[in-house]
Amino acid sequence: MPAGMRVGVLTGGGDCPGLNAVIRAVTRKGISVHRHEILGFRSGWLGPVEGLTTPLTLDAVEEILNRGGTILGSSRTNPYKIDDGIAKLKATLAEHRVDALIAIGGEDTLGVAEQLTHEGVPVVGVPKTIDNDLDATDYTFGFDTAVHIATEAIDRLRTTAESHHRALVVEVMGRHAGWIALHSGLAGGANVILVPEKQFSVDQVCDWVQQRFERQYAPIIVVAEGAIPEGGKELLLTGERDAFGHVRLGGVGTWLAEEISRRTGKESRAVVLGHVQRGGTPTAYDRVLATRFGLHAIDAVTEGDFGKMVALRGTDIVRVPLHEATASLKTVPLERYAEAEVLFG
Amino acid sequence: MPAGMRVGVLTGGGDCPGLNAVIRAVTRKGISVHRHEILGFRSGWLGPVEGLTTPLTLDAVEEILNRGGTILGSSRTNPYKIDDGIAKLKATLAEHRVDALIAIGGEDTLGVAEQLTHEGVPVVGVPKTIDNDLDATDYTFGFDTAVHIATEAIDRLRTTAESHHRALVVEVMGRHAGWIALHSGLAGGANVILVPEKQFSVDQVCDWVQQRFERQYAPIIVVAEGAIPEGGKELLLTGERDAFGHVRLGGVGTWLAEEISRRTGKESRAVVLGHVQRGGTPTAYDRVLATRFGLHAIDAVTEGDFGKMVALRGTDIVRVPLHEATASLKTVPLERYAEAEVLFG
Amino acid sequence: MPAGMRVGVLTGGGDCPGLNAVIRAVTRKGISVHRHEILGFRSGWLGPVEGLTTPLTLDAVEEILNRGGTILGSSRTNPYKIDDGIAKLKATLAEHRVDALIAIGGEDTLGVAEQLTHEGVPVVGVPKTIDNDLDATDYTFGFDTAVHIATEAIDRLRTTAESHHRALVVEVMGRHAGWIALHSGLAGGANVILVPEKQFSVDQVCDWVQQRFERQYAPIIVVAEGAIPEGGKELLLTGERDAFGHVRLGGVGTWLAEEISRRTGKESRAVVLGHVQRGGTPTAYDRVLATRFGLHAIDAVTEGDFGKMVALRGTDIVRVPLHEATASLKTVPLERYAEAEVLFG
Amino acid sequence: MPAGMRVGVLTGGGDCPGLNAVIRAVTRKGISVHRHEILGFRSGWLGPVEGLTTPLTLDAVEEILNRGGTILGSSRTNPYKIDDGIAKLKATLAEHRVDALIAIGGEDTLGVAEQLTHEGVPVVGVPKTIDNDLDATDYTFGFDTAVHIATEAIDRLRTTAESHHRALVVEVMGRHAGWIALHSGLAGGANVILVPEKQFSVDQVCDWVQQRFERQYAPIIVVAEGAIPEGGKELLLTGERDAFGHVRLGGVGTWLAEEISRRTGKESRAVVLGHVQRGGTPTAYDRVLATRFGLHAIDAVTEGDFGKMVALRGTDIVRVPLHEATASLKTVPLERYAEAEVLFG
Repeated sequence: MPAGMRVGVLTGGGDCPGLNAVIRAVTRKGISVHRHEILGFRSGWLGPVEGLTTPLTLDAVEEILNRGGTILGSSRTNPYKIDDGIAKLKATLAEHRVDALIAIGGEDTLGVAEQLTHEGVPVVGVPKTIDNDLDATDYTFGFDTAVHIATEAIDRLRTTAESHHRALVVEVMGRHAGWIALHSGLAGGANVILVPEKQFSVDQVCDWVQQRFERQYAPIIVVAEGAIPEGGKELLLTGERDAFGHVRLGGVGTWLAEEISRRTGKESRAVVLGHVQRGGTPTAYDRVLATRFGLHAIDAVTEGDFGKMVALRGTDIVRVPLHEATASLKTVPLERYAEAEVLFG
Repeated sequence: MPAGMRVGVLTGGGDCPGLNAVIRAVTRKGISVHRHEILGFRSGWLGPVEGLTTPLTLDAVEEILNRGGTILGSSRTNPYKIDDGIAKLKATLAEHRVDALIAIGGEDTLGVAEQLTHEGVPVVGVPKTIDNDLDATDYTFGFDTAVHIATEAIDRLRTTAESHHRALVVEVMGRHAGWIALHSGLAGGANVILVPEKQFSVDQVCDWVQQRFERQYAPIIVVAEGAIPEGGKELLLTGERDAFGHVRLGGVGTWLAEEISRRTGKESRAVVLGHVQRGGTPTAYDRVLATRFGLHAIDAVTEGDFGKMVALRGTDIVRVPLHEATASLKTVPLERYAEAEVLFG
Repeated sequence: MPAGMRVGVLTGGGDCPGLNAVIRAVTRKGISVHRHEILGFRSGWLGPVEGLTTPLTLDAVEEILNRGGTILGSSRTNPYKIDDGIAKLKATLAEHRVDALIAIGGEDTLGVAEQLTHEGVPVVGVPKTIDNDLDATDYTFGFDTAVHIATEAIDRLRTTAESHHRALVVEVMGRHAGWIALHSGLAGGANVILVPEKQFSVDQVCDWVQQRFERQYAPIIVVAEGAIPEGGKELLLTGERDAFGHVRLGGVGTWLAEEISRRTGKESRAVVLGHVQRGGTPTAYDRVLATRFGLHAIDAVTEGDFGKMVALRGTDIVRVPLHEATASLKTVPLERYAEAEVLFG
Repeated sequence: MPAGMRVGVLTGGGDCPGLNAVIRAVTRKGISVHRHEILGFRSGWLGPVEGLTTPLTLDAVEEILNRGGTILGSSRTNPYKIDDGIAKLKATLAEHRVDALIAIGGEDTLGVAEQLTHEGVPVVGVPKTIDNDLDATDYTFGFDTAVHIATEAIDRLRTTAESHHRALVVEVMGRHAGWIALHSGLAGGANVILVPEKQFSVDQVCDWVQQRFERQYAPIIVVAEGAIPEGGKELLLTGERDAFGHVRLGGVGTWLAEEISRRTGKESRAVVLGHVQRGGTPTAYDRVLATRFGLHAIDAVTEGDFGKMVALRGTDIVRVPLHEATASLKTVPLERYAEAEVLFG
């Protein structure tokens, strides 16, 4: 058997359920099948810059498949924004005789990966975005878990809304893309779903809310954190100022609950799900997808197919150029939103 | 067989997982064993005041055991604060030939129940408080579900905290009593638990947070919504004013996350769980407790043992005078808090 | 607005989480957008044969989205195998002035749907198979839920296996296709996965089991109920005879646990998950897929595009001829099995 | 501060969710508050007999609170049944300078603990039985988790039973005591609950089943594995013989499903939950109870209060003599069974 390679792995950006499943799959197949050595870099791109390493052995990846977060830690470090960042990074790779890197991350992490490829650092990417907003892949892991958690919350909130004849506004993640709102709203049977892709009319929302009350049910409104009312973001400005003296932007969920209450005279409450959406054990769907991504990424490395990232197309794992990952944001198409809209009210 | 009675049932106050299990048990045993007729009153005490009724047949209580909320709806109406409230209530009971009432609710609802008893309305109470703050019973249903939901959230937040080396503050329910914070904090392995029963020192909290970071773990702080920093509630006042011109009280969780961040220099985030804690399917524990409460309440009615409420003592369901329910708030004793405190840091 | 149609809906074959989500989506969009009347037929094809109907109004489909099973009931009735079955069915449709049918079901149900199309009954199909073995669609609803439940069970069994140094064999659904075993095995980190598509060598299984024990971990073996050992099904015959005098076929899970125990000398236990895999609330993934299937099916009916069924391709819902549904069984391709096999041991 | 003690900890018998929570609480309080050293013995009583140790440091007990099983492993070894077992055990304790033991286990493990106490080995016990059948404590940890898992399964099975108009028999744990059947049956709304404490009449069961079908619902029958039909265990004998030539006892669940089918002519299926009931993450309730048991056990050790075990009485943790743990089995009292029986049919 030919001697294997020495492969570095890192996770960058916000954490996401399924990261550990990728790390495990890369490590297990890398060691057992390809006879590579696998070296973990800690804290995203900071790891190769500062030489923060941790060995990834078979034992190190036991019992991590169903754990959220990332055993490697993460950061938002961009080596191009650090003095001598790239030189240090290359020195670390040389020192540890690393033949190739697997970078698991979102737009930013993969953007760095692509730049590095052009400078001769052999990298394979694994896409990660809990928001599902990467255009080059049908789905990314973590998204299904986030939708699952938001849906469970909506299920719970429905019974409390009904008991008190209240409107409940649920704010979910999604600054630029409304996928989590769309899918959790569909799954939870929301009566209104609001996404960043389309400014919403508060009047229209109140109409749907009223319709629902008239049918003797309580309305659930799911709103992505990045959704904007007609009239613009300025409506969300609060009087408060933050430490820098900037006037704070209030959360759209809380704002909307107050507007609904004011306009319809009905009790209304907001729940902001926040960080619970990105933590904890991944769903089975995400574990399978993340595992398959890891298995295919280590194959790409072994074949020397660099500058690529793995992606899901239908039921297949394929490889696409890294620059596709960052080319354009995958937002919710208006026809997908329209598909859901018929269920409002 | 002697003719049965006509028994009214209502649910008052905030909703709580397990209410439907009580209604089902009362109805099934009432009809099948005691040959009573069971009549539901809708929207708490508003139901008997305004004559809002719904028949509770065997079919009506199928498939509700595992549903959150209450099929009868709820309200915070106090008939003593409505013009002619008591007269109307008595008229409704007479009109529907109701022989006795079962009132399921917390301090307020049971307080009304007790007053009515003194005026000759035969009532049996079933205690309900998601906060577990009724002194007359070991536990109330709904509490276990709230603790379960908060614990799941803490489990999820732990992995995201670890991945980003962040402190995470989780604000849970509990305005006057810290039971949910204490139990979910213990169950989730929180590194700090803060309760309304004891003002907290932010310095001390930051010490525990630092200790945790020094051991290379990320701290989780569970704080009851009613917890107050040393220095008093005023610290929580924000600059903002509400619709009435009052300066708003900020949430303690958000405030504390900012303080930790400011003092320790570590990233810190807050999650406010809110209404998800009181909705959705009850845990098995709560379904059993609520079912047993219902079975015993209808027995008390049948025996004419009015002015009492059912309560849990050890593994037994007993009856205690209604006024015990409202005599004193069951807060977390300092020795129970001290028991948990040894696990902080 | 033009007068709408009268559309019948039925669910056939084994139940599957997500059926109610389809029924709800068909009904809501049918009524609100297309102004159709929707008529439910109960108990699969028996409904239109015997005239068992139930109206599907907006209220009838409230609160069913997150419920397992089917509010219409199901059966395995084939109208072609009933005397005058087709004549009766046509008579029922005529009597109730049904313009078109939506048939939700698997191979058998859709096979009948296709035959009826050739006889002039306008039908649109919605594919349903918990086993994910329909070739014409990337995934079917119910499958993700089954995988989710099996994965949760594997997670639970792992800790008990480790504590007792035991092998645990988990038998999951899948008589002819190993999809549930493959996906839940991957998601649960199974150390061996056995599928009907490939006869397994007990020696090889025991090798993997031993490897695992040697690394001081406890092995989990996931086996599809239709998996067959080398040597053939006859190995699974028990001494027992059933009511008809036939010698019974034992379950492969129980048999394999005993073989592992006998050959390796290690304790081994079997768990047969059974019907829990197909019941209860659907996952968010399945609710979204089922809802989208329903929305598109009622569109196809409205457009008069009969003899088709809806299907998932990538992230799109498309229409394919009904006969594709039944053309060939989608089994696990050997390369997908090989992809997973590198993680065994 | 006075020098602390050296305290050994072991877990014996079947695994149970919550064991790790006890180990963690003992270790954290032992080290942080009492300045003890904590030494883990692996594999139950085999550990001190053969000198299998593992240090329990603060780091060793991080991240185990929410994990099922026991990080110490378990066994059913009885040192009194091993040649020189007690001598070896004492030698190990002497060699490692162990001042006291905490034994976490059920009747057998605590029985050994009590015998050892009489021979001068200082032991404190922590009761563990998933079956809740220890008389000296209101509840034991693990029980709530088992009930939770069984209840979730019943919830899932109900929808599939309804869709197919089938009877579903669910066999749960409980060889000698019916607590899991009673509580999960109550929580799941079972239509019949059968426990070992009372032989059941198949005729009576079929009556309840028929009643249920007549009301157009599907019956769920929860049966403890140790339940026995009138006529005795012999009815459960199958034709098959095991490796030792003994005729095998069939499972009561499977047998009963066939009897129901045969006598009522209705389809009937059995599901045997098995080991899933004892694995995986503990419920919040069990984590709190197990943590409190651990905290109080290490206090008892520190105070030199040996020959005792900790126990739950109401909401208090108390200490009772070890022999009480093994004095009598806590079975379901007939009045508790009667309380539930009114909900049958």
